[in-house]
Amino acid sequence: MATSANTQQRDPNTVLVGKKPVMNYVLACLTLLQNGNSGVTIKARGRAISKAVDVAQILTKRFATDVTVKKISIDTEQVKSPETGTTSNVSSIEIKLEK
Amino acid sequence: MATSANTQQRDPNTVLVGKKPVMNYVLACLTLLQNGNSGVTIKARGRAISKAVDVAQILTKRFATDVTVKKISIDTEQVKSPETGTTSNVSSIEIKLEK
Repeated sequence: MATSANTQQRDPNTVLVGKKPVMNYVLACLTLLQNGNSGVTIKARGRAISKAVDVAQILTKRFATDVTVKKISIDTEQVKSPETGTTSNVSSIEIKLEK
Repeated sequence: MATSANTQQRDPNTVLVGKKPVMNYVLACLTLLQNGNSGVTIKARGRAISKAVDVAQILTKRFATDVTVKKISIDTEQVKSPETGTTSNVSSIEIKLEK
């Protein structure tokens, strides 16, 4: 959905979780899976990390029970504030789901 | 520290991340590691999941660079509201760090 619109340089099977309601991202993942993809990657940064875990759990436990969590990795990204110009560290998560 | 006080039935090497500042949990992990433990498990539920990832990243990148993320698992827990008596699903995370 809208989440994959601004991720042209990324893997098209990636859903970037942000500030929208959880079910938006669940639907985005379901759409990708129903379009013949065997897997989908959920990414999030900062506070959206909790929501990314929610998305993965709702998918695997309720809507796509044939999909399982294949790999979870965490990392730190440097984010530059456009106002102050200072860089800060933000944690990120990547959850790979596969059929 | 205080986080392990009410986790008697749990693994003593577990730090449960909640509402306190991130550095409290980083310190709790460092204390466990400095007391001879070769590893520590960080657990969190709901919104604290993002903070748990922060704790793991701050530890592995800054304060205990010899420690690496060994395993990350996510799950769903049923939480019963004491007021309404209804159960709701809450996502949880478990991050295992080891030397």
